Amino acid sequence: MIKVGIVGGTGYTGVELLRILVNHPGVELCVITSRSEAGTPVADMYPNLRGHTELKFTVPDTATLGACDVVFFATPHGVAHSLAAEILATGTRVIDLSADFRIQDADEWEAWYGQPHGARELLPEAVYGLPEVKRDDIRTARLLAVPGCYPTSVQLGYLPLLENNLLPEQTLIADCKSGVSGAGRGAKVGSLLCETSESVMAYGVAGHRHLPEIRQGLAWFAGKPVSLTFVPHLMPMVRGIHSTLYAFAPDLDASVDLQTLYEERYVNEPFVDVMPAGSHPATRSVKGSNMCRIAVHHHADTGQIVVLSVIDNLVKGASGQAVQNMNLMFGLDETAGLNHVALMP
Amino acid sequence: MIKVGIVGGTGYTGVELLRILVNHPGVELCVITSRSEAGTPVADMYPNLRGHTELKFTVPDTATLGACDVVFFATPHGVAHSLAAEILATGTRVIDLSADFRIQDADEWEAWYGQPHGARELLPEAVYGLPEVKRDDIRTARLLAVPGCYPTSVQLGYLPLLENNLLPEQTLIADCKSGVSGAGRGAKVGSLLCETSESVMAYGVAGHRHLPEIRQGLAWFAGKPVSLTFVPHLMPMVRGIHSTLYAFAPDLDASVDLQTLYEERYVNEPFVDVMPAGSHPATRSVKGSNMCRIAVHHHADTGQIVVLSVIDNLVKGASGQAVQNMNLMFGLDETAGLNHVALMP
Amino acid sequence: MIKVGIVGGTGYTGVELLRILVNHPGVELCVITSRSEAGTPVADMYPNLRGHTELKFTVPDTATLGACDVVFFATPHGVAHSLAAEILATGTRVIDLSADFRIQDADEWEAWYGQPHGARELLPEAVYGLPEVKRDDIRTARLLAVPGCYPTSVQLGYLPLLENNLLPEQTLIADCKSGVSGAGRGAKVGSLLCETSESVMAYGVAGHRHLPEIRQGLAWFAGKPVSLTFVPHLMPMVRGIHSTLYAFAPDLDASVDLQTLYEERYVNEPFVDVMPAGSHPATRSVKGSNMCRIAVHHHADTGQIVVLSVIDNLVKGASGQAVQNMNLMFGLDETAGLNHVALMP
Amino acid sequence: MIKVGIVGGTGYTGVELLRILVNHPGVELCVITSRSEAGTPVADMYPNLRGHTELKFTVPDTATLGACDVVFFATPHGVAHSLAAEILATGTRVIDLSADFRIQDADEWEAWYGQPHGARELLPEAVYGLPEVKRDDIRTARLLAVPGCYPTSVQLGYLPLLENNLLPEQTLIADCKSGVSGAGRGAKVGSLLCETSESVMAYGVAGHRHLPEIRQGLAWFAGKPVSLTFVPHLMPMVRGIHSTLYAFAPDLDASVDLQTLYEERYVNEPFVDVMPAGSHPATRSVKGSNMCRIAVHHHADTGQIVVLSVIDNLVKGASGQAVQNMNLMFGLDETAGLNHVALMP
Repeated sequence: MIKVGIVGGTGYTGVELLRILVNHPGVELCVITSRSEAGTPVADMYPNLRGHTELKFTVPDTATLGACDVVFFATPHGVAHSLAAEILATGTRVIDLSADFRIQDADEWEAWYGQPHGARELLPEAVYGLPEVKRDDIRTARLLAVPGCYPTSVQLGYLPLLENNLLPEQTLIADCKSGVSGAGRGAKVGSLLCETSESVMAYGVAGHRHLPEIRQGLAWFAGKPVSLTFVPHLMPMVRGIHSTLYAFAPDLDASVDLQTLYEERYVNEPFVDVMPAGSHPATRSVKGSNMCRIAVHHHADTGQIVVLSVIDNLVKGASGQAVQNMNLMFGLDETAGLNHVALMP
Repeated sequence: MIKVGIVGGTGYTGVELLRILVNHPGVELCVITSRSEAGTPVADMYPNLRGHTELKFTVPDTATLGACDVVFFATPHGVAHSLAAEILATGTRVIDLSADFRIQDADEWEAWYGQPHGARELLPEAVYGLPEVKRDDIRTARLLAVPGCYPTSVQLGYLPLLENNLLPEQTLIADCKSGVSGAGRGAKVGSLLCETSESVMAYGVAGHRHLPEIRQGLAWFAGKPVSLTFVPHLMPMVRGIHSTLYAFAPDLDASVDLQTLYEERYVNEPFVDVMPAGSHPATRSVKGSNMCRIAVHHHADTGQIVVLSVIDNLVKGASGQAVQNMNLMFGLDETAGLNHVALMP
Repeated sequence: MIKVGIVGGTGYTGVELLRILVNHPGVELCVITSRSEAGTPVADMYPNLRGHTELKFTVPDTATLGACDVVFFATPHGVAHSLAAEILATGTRVIDLSADFRIQDADEWEAWYGQPHGARELLPEAVYGLPEVKRDDIRTARLLAVPGCYPTSVQLGYLPLLENNLLPEQTLIADCKSGVSGAGRGAKVGSLLCETSESVMAYGVAGHRHLPEIRQGLAWFAGKPVSLTFVPHLMPMVRGIHSTLYAFAPDLDASVDLQTLYEERYVNEPFVDVMPAGSHPATRSVKGSNMCRIAVHHHADTGQIVVLSVIDNLVKGASGQAVQNMNLMFGLDETAGLNHVALMP
Repeated sequence: MIKVGIVGGTGYTGVELLRILVNHPGVELCVITSRSEAGTPVADMYPNLRGHTELKFTVPDTATLGACDVVFFATPHGVAHSLAAEILATGTRVIDLSADFRIQDADEWEAWYGQPHGARELLPEAVYGLPEVKRDDIRTARLLAVPGCYPTSVQLGYLPLLENNLLPEQTLIADCKSGVSGAGRGAKVGSLLCETSESVMAYGVAGHRHLPEIRQGLAWFAGKPVSLTFVPHLMPMVRGIHSTLYAFAPDLDASVDLQTLYEERYVNEPFVDVMPAGSHPATRSVKGSNMCRIAVHHHADTGQIVVLSVIDNLVKGASGQAVQNMNLMFGLDETAGLNHVALMP
């Protein structure tokens, strides 16, 4: 049994990690930390966990965390920078769900996150945990950066096109729709039910922190910089991201069958489901599951390829993908503990 | 592995059965029927099941169904009456999620359901599948009637009070709130999002079909008829029932500790969770899980006992309880396949 | 034109007052105050008001407010106590939407609100602004206390029964369901969309601040103290209160026609609509309007009378009723500015 | 007072017309028709109208309708074709909310709507009722086609760019999000709360009936055909359309100030509100109102202009715009009866 610790477990990615891990066949949950809630049983804060765990929040402590095989960070940005090195020094591996190690260019990270990067020396060994692209690196990673929610859905949607160099212009538009849980459990007016239900709005049109992360991934796939317009929107629901991805390919070779291209690229991926041609995946089809469902459409008249990519932002977009990475890092079945069927309805 | 068939799997209780059974460790899903969808892969109708099952809907056929160890009926009322006898005659056991065998008094059934009872001869052996009350009968049942959603939450909430004869007046009020999935997947104007969201309303105040079923159970517990006022309400959400149960007990003996009474009654029940004193269980704490969470309050000044009882109407109120019964009927661990943690958020 | 000021206009009752008053034919909006938002145009905070008002928030100032004919307080509890006397001293009338002057017994107010009552000397002249009961007093009031949202719906629902002395036992149960806007615009975790949507829960079962206010009103109607059990519930929606009211009347005289009783009591009330016999009013039928819709049911078998009473908590439960009172106080048509048709769907 | 009739008033655009017209100062509602509901009081179907109208549904009758000054058609596609000529022949003007007269090319209409065009001879005089573009034609129209919901929000969003010839490439992408009320009040599984809430999905990616209508308008503005990719999405809410409009303008002249361009274009428009630079309009800011709010963003690095355009699909996208057109046709104040402030929250 892998001994697992969680740092910062009071937020939505923290409780979602717990939901997955308490039923994981290869894991022993040893410690979960929260300074503000130290002493409180986890199940008092999250009654869905009553009967599933007796764990209490504790103050973070390197010795205790270092006794684990792996520690998940479900902390706000900037926290993992300082703590990760201490944990790694004990020989314990680290899986960070925050943005702290996702962007390889520390200067760019600082520009977008508005604070000094606290662990530049660790960046060279940080592995970007998108298994569909980095599986081999992940297996041996000591420090793993779990991709963001928007980046996961956008990158998986564009991957086959960019890898195959089908977009000479590379002027991409990602119109993304997210549920409110992406904003976290913080007490903010903008996340109140009375402010977000029965309404749709864009936000961060001038610039969003996930843009550099997405661009970094797309450039890896294409082998060169990629121009992307990214517009996130807030949806009146709890979970789910729907990315509508546009790629202008007016001169696409008639011999290219996009449906086959996508199906072949992902045929062996346990958590990417290429839907039949003409499909419109709904976010509810992945609610609570680690699946990314993708459909690809082609408008021959306008030259636009339209890719629809849906995930649960808290699962494949965060905690589920973190566990998928853990499974790879420890040689478990990649799908262990991740067989949830989405709740429909 | 228990061979399982499902009759009428296109509705919400059908797909919920599938969600649970595809991950059940002791079950082999053999057949699922639907006349209207025969030939369609289940996962085409319910894409959350893509990758979890290759089953296709077939036309119901006694031979095929009779080759199963157990057949679930997830059909509209009246259908199981005619088919169940055929299936039972093959030696296959039947678990009926409809109301067809819940009420022992066939005349009363006919009065409420407005049609002739098609299987009066089977009623004597039909077992009411509330494990917290009928566990021993369930183990040996050939024909099992899964309790309704409202009846499950109301009966579990009143059970300790009535069993202990604490309510001499027995003038009970059950004010129940249900999500829209209780109305099924039928195309009805009254179930449209535009008719039900952002609104609350009572319905069936003059009489609801679950009333005789609830009264039957309460009378069993009390050993005599019980007077009940039952008012169901429609909530703007998909899943969940919240029953607020009132019991007037002005002369309650001061020595009775209701919290202890409830805790002791349910201490060994895997799917009833008595919350700490003063709690207010939310339906989301059981969303997708088979748990019933209960809190008991006492207003000494008015003499009212107030019991709060929440379930997921599609799980403990239907398909989860059906599987719990199956586990008992076949000698499996009662909780097999039912360890889901509720989705929060 | 009546000159109107608003103290504390940043909350939901404040913006709702503005929504109503900017289209009121007899009102000139002169000032709206907020210390925290001083200088900000109201329409910057509430873009629905763009084009309807150029007002900016200002720091509260007695001279400016005293130049108005009437000042609405849409402030947290305790604020109006200290300011109202100053405003009244200038000859300006005060309509308080908070709870500060609703309860005539200052000791009881202090017990429930946990702070000293700051204006006991004003209580004798404070008028409880339920027009259906206090219309004449309202016309001449200098200081008006707008009833709370739950109290409005519950009191209007029980009024005909208590006035006619039909409930000898007077053991009443009010099971009330409210949208989240009742919790205000404060940044609280408990009001987040991710905490409140797709869920129902009771709260304050042990005691809620609206209980003494409701009991005060019911005792007025009955001419004696009334025993009431009040259980509020949080609904996954923005607006609306649905009160399901139970009254045990086992010996109700067969000559009493409850439907007629209600219709006659409210026949001249512009904002109480007694629905036809057998109705189930939905909260959406009053969304955005000042109407209270009521249906009365009688269960002869159990002796329970069941009254269904719905309002929009922000309109008839707060700002609309405040304007209705203003209309009465200034001799305007009682319905002026309040002709909104509820949004359906 | 203008005498008004409505044909087909049982759907959501019908009841929304009623909501607006019962409070319109210059209108007398004379008749509303529905074959299926003939004899039923409108307020029985839509209780929000109780107290606002005594009208009953009647069977459509040319004589009665012909006695009106204007008749609104709120019918399914194809119905107005046959009836409109009869009504027009009586001298009564017609405002059609369906798609029957929106597209000038009858062949294209037939291709998209899959039925013969029933009134080709009327097309030359049919006026497309987008007041911001066709105001003068509208004033004298006998037969008016109210624009569709998506087309209204998309056309108003692109109008200033195309009129000023700022998009040489004219490869446009309209990513549109709509509430479920756009699907109407029909009893369809796809519109159930349990199928649409807590989920987002695209639909009609291969082609949607509003595409030719949008293209027709954009071509008028540009003076030449325009290439458009249109992807509609279904949102888990009742009302509102959010159109996110992309226009690739890599060589935009630095002297062009888009904010000023938009503000000047719409400065005199009562129902188009250009938000301050950097804004993100939410659909709730127009819920229940006839306003279209627009914000324009420019990504200089990628060359993309991003326009955000929100309307209430049932008001500016249907019934409100219909009344705006009526006001123009009869020489009333264009805003008469349309001063609603959006409900927030």
